[in-house]
Amino acid sequence: MILDGNKISLEIKNEIKELVSKRVNERKKIPHLAAIIVGNDGASLTYVGSKVRACDYVGFKSTLIRLDDSISEKLLLDNINSLNNNNEIDGFIVQLPLPKSINEEKVLLAIDPKKDVDGFHPTNFGRMALEMESFIPATPYGIIELLERYNIETSGKNCVVIGRSNIVGRPISILLSQKSDRGNSTVILTHSRTKNLEFFTKRADIIVSALGIPEFLKSEMVKEDAVIIDVGITRVIDKTKEKGYVIKGDVDFLNVSKKASAITPVPGGVGPMTISMLLKNTLLACQRKD
Amino acid sequence: MILDGNKISLEIKNEIKELVSKRVNERKKIPHLAAIIVGNDGASLTYVGSKVRACDYVGFKSTLIRLDDSISEKLLLDNINSLNNNNEIDGFIVQLPLPKSINEEKVLLAIDPKKDVDGFHPTNFGRMALEMESFIPATPYGIIELLERYNIETSGKNCVVIGRSNIVGRPISILLSQKSDRGNSTVILTHSRTKNLEFFTKRADIIVSALGIPEFLKSEMVKEDAVIIDVGITRVIDKTKEKGYVIKGDVDFLNVSKKASAITPVPGGVGPMTISMLLKNTLLACQRKD
Repeated sequence: MILDGNKISLEIKNEIKELVSKRVNERKKIPHLAAIIVGNDGASLTYVGSKVRACDYVGFKSTLIRLDDSISEKLLLDNINSLNNNNEIDGFIVQLPLPKSINEEKVLLAIDPKKDVDGFHPTNFGRMALEMESFIPATPYGIIELLERYNIETSGKNCVVIGRSNIVGRPISILLSQKSDRGNSTVILTHSRTKNLEFFTKRADIIVSALGIPEFLKSEMVKEDAVIIDVGITRVIDKTKEKGYVIKGDVDFLNVSKKASAITPVPGGVGPMTISMLLKNTLLACQRKD
Repeated sequence: MILDGNKISLEIKNEIKELVSKRVNERKKIPHLAAIIVGNDGASLTYVGSKVRACDYVGFKSTLIRLDDSISEKLLLDNINSLNNNNEIDGFIVQLPLPKSINEEKVLLAIDPKKDVDGFHPTNFGRMALEMESFIPATPYGIIELLERYNIETSGKNCVVIGRSNIVGRPISILLSQKSDRGNSTVILTHSRTKNLEFFTKRADIIVSALGIPEFLKSEMVKEDAVIIDVGITRVIDKTKEKGYVIKGDVDFLNVSKKASAITPVPGGVGPMTISMLLKNTLLACQRKD
């Protein structure tokens, strides 16, 4: 079975769209997402562009704040502060990466946790880990939602997470092992220092790979009927394509898909889910103020 | 090898004591820990008593605030607020459990994270998970310190954590898997929903058990030369003893110790470490204001 991120993502957006029009009818506040982008990085502009378009689609208001990459840290922090204090804005994100002259940690810490719809602020991360109300970062949230919508059982399953990043590996390892409907897995968090990774992946019921090495996970490394979640997105040069590259996941899809009981493609798997979950967080931020 | 928590704990206290007398000579602020205790629970009074005595030993100032168990949540929060605003107090703890009429989460959230030397506030938890400056909760911090002082390698080791509580299992699973000197383990977080726990424990280089079932971990469940950290503390009725009970850990010490390369006894293992780490956090809180 292919876990179709495009389809599920659209399903979620349509649900949100409906909730927004209900809010309009009830004269409740329309969710409003703001995004700060510093500089002219092509990929970042593309990402932010899709976020704005997604807001339009579901009926959210959106505000895009473009800042020059020569901006001082102080001025960026002033911009964040004014979004913190602006009641019209329910949630906002600061698109990463930032110019090297700016301290990323300082910037993330300046965001009001109640508006931190990316869920990157330590207060949200801690609240998530301690099972309090929070914003779950979009990528792990999207994975949980995908498992949920395809009704994939996680309780009591052996789940191997590959990669321990703060935005994917670490939070998904926490969520999958929590006492919750899409949790209760025995989670094995693996990383660059793990010895004999194959020993673990071969015995895993569910594998979440967030490594960033194209086609790393081969068919011999997974067991029959495993569930495979591929979070990798790497551009691989391919002169035969118009763009000059193709997007590859961490998984050797052609071969692993023959063995897996369920698998996310790349592109079209976890990727599209992240924007929908950002919208969901923004809606939550707005609802929490009702 | 026995991992002697009493010995290491004393070693740490003596180091802190020395640092405090250095601070006295340099006319720097003397660390000051406050503890709030609500009601007359015997075990809680004993714990808080040892914390105060430990402060005396290392030369910290300490303040014990005893409140009646009929106190309102509002009044307890007022007490917390006044400690938050009191510059003389570097760190404080609210001894748990609290009376049922009081919302524990609300109380923990009221503590200024900068003074939260128990490390239970989500902001500290998140900062710890995201590898920022924080207060690490005393028990997992004590485990890391014990491994450190006995020079037990964790990098690349297979480490099984039994139990996913917010104060032990969850944080130690995070710390041991982080990219750090006493981290870099492949961590398997197991819990009540884990199937075939023995499969994992038998293959573990390091086992941290924080389950609370006396003598649960048997010799057949561990491999030769494993490192065993026993966090369990359960009172088991024993009429032959003066107190009427004995303290038992999660590990069948008599038999497991014959196989293990290193093991913590109960009592005298992880337990005594926690008070020393609370002192260390209080010293840190004070130093951060220097």
